[in-house]
Amino acid sequence: MEKIASAKLFGGAHDVWRHSSEVLGVDMEFATFIPEGEGPFPVLYFLSGLTCTWENAATKAGAQQFAAKHGMILVFPDTSPRGDDVADDDSYALGKGAGFYMTATKAPWADHYKMDSYIIDELTAFVPKIAPVTGGKAGITGHSMGGHGALTLAMRYPDSFKSVSAFAPIVAPTKVPWGRDIFHAYLGDDESEWAAYDACELLVSNGWDGDILVDVGKADPFLEAQLKPDLLQSAAQKAGVELEMRLQEGYDHSYYFVTSFIEDHITWHKSRLTA
Amino acid sequence: MEKIASAKLFGGAHDVWRHSSEVLGVDMEFATFIPEGEGPFPVLYFLSGLTCTWENAATKAGAQQFAAKHGMILVFPDTSPRGDDVADDDSYALGKGAGFYMTATKAPWADHYKMDSYIIDELTAFVPKIAPVTGGKAGITGHSMGGHGALTLAMRYPDSFKSVSAFAPIVAPTKVPWGRDIFHAYLGDDESEWAAYDACELLVSNGWDGDILVDVGKADPFLEAQLKPDLLQSAAQKAGVELEMRLQEGYDHSYYFVTSFIEDHITWHKSRLTA
Repeated sequence: MEKIASAKLFGGAHDVWRHSSEVLGVDMEFATFIPEGEGPFPVLYFLSGLTCTWENAATKAGAQQFAAKHGMILVFPDTSPRGDDVADDDSYALGKGAGFYMTATKAPWADHYKMDSYIIDELTAFVPKIAPVTGGKAGITGHSMGGHGALTLAMRYPDSFKSVSAFAPIVAPTKVPWGRDIFHAYLGDDESEWAAYDACELLVSNGWDGDILVDVGKADPFLEAQLKPDLLQSAAQKAGVELEMRLQEGYDHSYYFVTSFIEDHITWHKSRLTA
Repeated sequence: MEKIASAKLFGGAHDVWRHSSEVLGVDMEFATFIPEGEGPFPVLYFLSGLTCTWENAATKAGAQQFAAKHGMILVFPDTSPRGDDVADDDSYALGKGAGFYMTATKAPWADHYKMDSYIIDELTAFVPKIAPVTGGKAGITGHSMGGHGALTLAMRYPDSFKSVSAFAPIVAPTKVPWGRDIFHAYLGDDESEWAAYDACELLVSNGWDGDILVDVGKADPFLEAQLKPDLLQSAAQKAGVELEMRLQEGYDHSYYFVTSFIEDHITWHKSRLTA
């Protein structure tokens, strides 16, 4: 574990870490924001979308100023295993940058694609070693594929997470091209195995002990074909889970959308993590 | 003039424009932020540093949220002429991305490198056609080379600008490598011609009818060799101009530094532009 970059911002520290991941079998990087002061502080994970690394959210989301204000640690993981030995594909929506926060079982992906296990088993164990974290559960949020990651990891690992929100999440990957293409590649053609990584399915099967905040732009070009927020609303209703689904007039899928509502999400997580 | 991209953020609009520049003789892009509402709104120009385009500040500085809050238009120009016909150099500190907000007189740079004239004669005339701007003078700020640009353009064109601030500006380019290398290339070896583009020289020769706000990180790796903020302090004292020079403990030269203090600058300009 090596700190490869550090910068002061909003009185706290933006740090970039490189480490050899046992789970993934490759070297990985992630970034953290640690606010000024002794702590301990609650932790919020921000999972990024297709094509991203830790850098997109850490530089464009504008989250740190509100984490500084509220006294929260932020963790920005990468979105897939990295390195020359890692299988890849020409499509931006498969392979590197598209880990989908799941464990692949099919070749050539099964060798390294285990981003769910990486975050749950490895990253959450590293963070207390490098940052003064409050004991107990963390918060998790994310954008697009990272919104899928936040929702599914929260519901699959309720012992790890107390609060979950998302920006323009993929909520029904078993039903939309971004998810189906990935699941065919990473899990194979037996669709019965796919439900374990579908937020709508998980919400009904596992439930969620808390409320959920989701923002989606009504001008998001992926709204109809890939995001389908109404499916999460139906699942929440069926599961009896309180979902605040905010359809934001005029906003698209970019970080201009994310940054416009990040303050609400940070504040929302803070209140739930310290309740 | 064509709008090539647009996104809603903080209730307003981030727009990217492409136009054929008469002054530069090439196609150029710049970005704007226009807040929600009828306006008119005062305008603040943000000039970027070496290697940047409009995109760095528009995506990383986090300025728009405060422009939205205070009702201000932001304009993010590019940092040099662009295109295959434009002379360039292998150094990141010369040629494309390093226009230095000046008019080159030496070959091969003199053909297109006229970023001062581009902003003053062309861009400030465009902006009222695409945004509901308040009549009268604008504000100007910038980072590093863009801080040099902000200071020198304000002092050279006091009829255009009412308020000026800077982040980690190059204040004495006639005395530091970043400036001297550029001036040798763009202006030639007669150093008597260089003072026209040196903020410290201009402050003493032209003065400035107002105060100036400058933030510089004390952990900025360019502090001693390239930035030399003490020279601007001496010049301000000699000129009798009120300079608030804030040396920020622990901050570096990056946008993590800029974004940490952007709110102060936006608020500062707003109060002076609407005084």
